[in-house]
Amino acid sequence: MNEVHIALDERSYDIHIGKALLSDHSLLTSSLKGRQVVVISNETVAPLYLEQIERALVDYEVHTILLSDGEHTKNLNTYSEIIDQMIAVPCDRRCTIIALGGGVIGDIAGFVAATYQRGIPFVQVPTTLLAQVDSSVGGKTGVNHPVGKNMIGAFHQPQKVITDLDTLSTLDDRQFSAGLAEVIKYGLINDFVFFQWIEQNLEKVMSKDADALTFIISRSCESKRDIVEQDEQEQGVRALLNLGHTFGHAIETATEYVEWLHGEAVALGMVMAADLSRRLGWIDQADCQRLNQVLVAARLPVALRQPIDPVVLRKLMQGDKKVLDGSLRLVLMKSLGEAVIVEDVDNELIMETLQGFAG
Amino acid sequence: MNEVHIALDERSYDIHIGKALLSDHSLLTSSLKGRQVVVISNETVAPLYLEQIERALVDYEVHTILLSDGEHTKNLNTYSEIIDQMIAVPCDRRCTIIALGGGVIGDIAGFVAATYQRGIPFVQVPTTLLAQVDSSVGGKTGVNHPVGKNMIGAFHQPQKVITDLDTLSTLDDRQFSAGLAEVIKYGLINDFVFFQWIEQNLEKVMSKDADALTFIISRSCESKRDIVEQDEQEQGVRALLNLGHTFGHAIETATEYVEWLHGEAVALGMVMAADLSRRLGWIDQADCQRLNQVLVAARLPVALRQPIDPVVLRKLMQGDKKVLDGSLRLVLMKSLGEAVIVEDVDNELIMETLQGFAG
Repeated sequence: MNEVHIALDERSYDIHIGKALLSDHSLLTSSLKGRQVVVISNETVAPLYLEQIERALVDYEVHTILLSDGEHTKNLNTYSEIIDQMIAVPCDRRCTIIALGGGVIGDIAGFVAATYQRGIPFVQVPTTLLAQVDSSVGGKTGVNHPVGKNMIGAFHQPQKVITDLDTLSTLDDRQFSAGLAEVIKYGLINDFVFFQWIEQNLEKVMSKDADALTFIISRSCESKRDIVEQDEQEQGVRALLNLGHTFGHAIETATEYVEWLHGEAVALGMVMAADLSRRLGWIDQADCQRLNQVLVAARLPVALRQPIDPVVLRKLMQGDKKVLDGSLRLVLMKSLGEAVIVEDVDNELIMETLQGFAG
Repeated sequence: MNEVHIALDERSYDIHIGKALLSDHSLLTSSLKGRQVVVISNETVAPLYLEQIERALVDYEVHTILLSDGEHTKNLNTYSEIIDQMIAVPCDRRCTIIALGGGVIGDIAGFVAATYQRGIPFVQVPTTLLAQVDSSVGGKTGVNHPVGKNMIGAFHQPQKVITDLDTLSTLDDRQFSAGLAEVIKYGLINDFVFFQWIEQNLEKVMSKDADALTFIISRSCESKRDIVEQDEQEQGVRALLNLGHTFGHAIETATEYVEWLHGEAVALGMVMAADLSRRLGWIDQADCQRLNQVLVAARLPVALRQPIDPVVLRKLMQGDKKVLDGSLRLVLMKSLGEAVIVEDVDNELIMETLQGFAG
C-alpha cells in the first residue's frame, strides 16, 4: 500500500492506494466519528462493493442511498432528495458519509457532506481511475446546473480516501481510458519526466499491472496535491489543473453530456489546447503529434466525431465558470510539461483552433 | 464608528458599527473584488435602503434579487431560484453578493455565496438588531428544511459587515426586542458585567440611543467573536451560543414558525434553561426572577400563550441538530454569566421544566 498525505492544516488527510483495501476494516472504521454512517453509491457500483463496505461496518448504524448511474443524477434535485432521506433517518452531525463510486458519487456525496447541518465528515472510496486521480484530491464537491457543470458546490476535504486498485478490475475499458486522460494531464502540466514514463510504460498501465497503477495514481495524486496545497481555493495556480477543461467542458455541454465521457472531453480539450499553443508559437507540430500518439495509445479521442459550430463552442467556453471578469482564461502549454495560465489570447487564434477541430 | 475585528486567518474581516454608514460609498466598494454585484434583499427592506446601496455602486454592474419577507423564504427552493437567476446573468466567480436585510436574508444570501461556483465573496448589511448582533458574526449560512431550521448550510465568512444604526429606526418594536434577546444572551453566557449594564441601561437602549446601541452591538459582536475564534466550526465551546436555542427551536417548530419571532423563542428558551438550571441546584429562584425582569422590560415573552404538549417539545428538542450521537446536549447556567454545555441532564428534570411552562 502507498500513502499520499494531503497537508491542509486541520483539514489534512491521507490517500491510501493499494490492493484489497476494502478488506481492511480498520482502515475504514478508524475515520468514523459517530455511530451513524450513510453510504452513498449507485446501482452499478453497489452490487460489486457495497457488501464489503457493510462487512467492515457491522458495529455501526448503516444507511444506504443508491442513485442511478451517470452524470444526470448530479443535480440539485438529487442533492435535495439525499438531504431529505438523511433528515428522515434522522442523521446527526457526527454521521459520516462514505462516497462509494466514481466522480459523480464523490462530488454529490461530498456536497451533501459539506452542507448537511453545515458540514459532516466524509470518506471517499473512489472506484474509477478518474475519481482516484482527480476528484479524490482537493476537496472540490458540487452538482451541475442545466446551464453548466459544477456551478453549485463547496470546498470540503474528506477524512480519508481509500483507493482499492481491485475496483479497477470491474471498470470498463472506456472509463479506464477516460481516467488516463487526467493522468496524462499531470505530465503535461509540470512533470515531463512523468509524461515520458507514461509514453514508455503505457502497455503495463493498459493491462492494469498493480505496480504501474499504484505508481500513476500516486504520482497523479502527488502532482495534484502539490498544486492544491499552494492554492486550496483556486485563486491562482490551481487553475493549471484545468488544462483541457475549458475546451472540454464546452464540448461536453454542446454534446449534452451524452456523447463523451468527461475524461474523453478533457483529452479532446488537451489536443485543442496543444493546437492553440502551437499557433502561439510555444510548442511545435512534433509536440502535438507526440501528445496525440500517447492519447491514441490510451484509446482516447483526438478528434470530434461530428462537427460542432465553432461559434457555439466559443460561447460555451465563455460561459465556463473559469472566467474572470468577462475575460477568457485558458491553460495552455509553453512546452510539454510546462502549462501556463493565459488571459489575453488573441480571439482569432482561438477561433482558428476551434475551426480546425470543430468546423 | 466602532470596528470589531474578527480574526480567522485568511478569512478575517471587520464589522463596522455606526450611523450613516450606508452613505460612506468607499466603505462598501472597497470590499468588492470584481465588477459584478448581486444585492439580495426583501420587499420590506429594499424600498428603504436599496437606493442608498445602488448610489454607492454606480460604477458596478448591479443585479438585484428581492425575496418576499419572512422565514418561509429561507428554503432550498428559494436558494435554487437565486442560483438560477445568477447563472442567467451570468455572474462570474468574482461577483460579490451583498446581503441587505435581516437574518433570513443574511443566511440564504450567505449560503448562495458559499456555494455559487464553490464560493464567491459576500458583504453583510444587516438591518435588524438580531442580525447585527448574531448572524453577522461567525459565518454560519444556510436554509431551513421542513423538518427543522438550518439543516442545510455552510460556514462562509463575509468580506465585511456594515452595521448602519440608522436602519434600526425603521425596525418595528417587536423585531427590535427580539434582537435584544440575543444581546441579553451574551451577558448570560460569560459576561455578568454586561448583563448588569443591560439591567441598568435598558431604557436608553429601548429609546435607541446611538451610544447605547453602538455599545451593545459592539459588545455582543466581541462576545460572539471571542467564542467563534476559539471554535469556528462549532466542535466545542461555540455551542455555548446556543443558550436558549434548543428549547427555542422546539417552540418555533411546534408553533410552525408563525407565533414567535426567533428572538422571542430564544427568550422563552433562556427562561426554560434558567428553570432547568434551578432544578439542578445551580442557580436560585432570585436569579430566574432577575432574568425574567430584564426580559419583560425588553418587552420579551417569558411564558407560552398556548400550552404545547411537553412530550412533543421533548421530541422536537431531540431532533434539533445540536444533538451528538443521540444524547441531548443542552446549554445551561451555573450562574448568571456562566453558561455550560451539559450532555447528561436527567430527563425527568427536563420534563418537569417543560411541564412547568408548556403543559
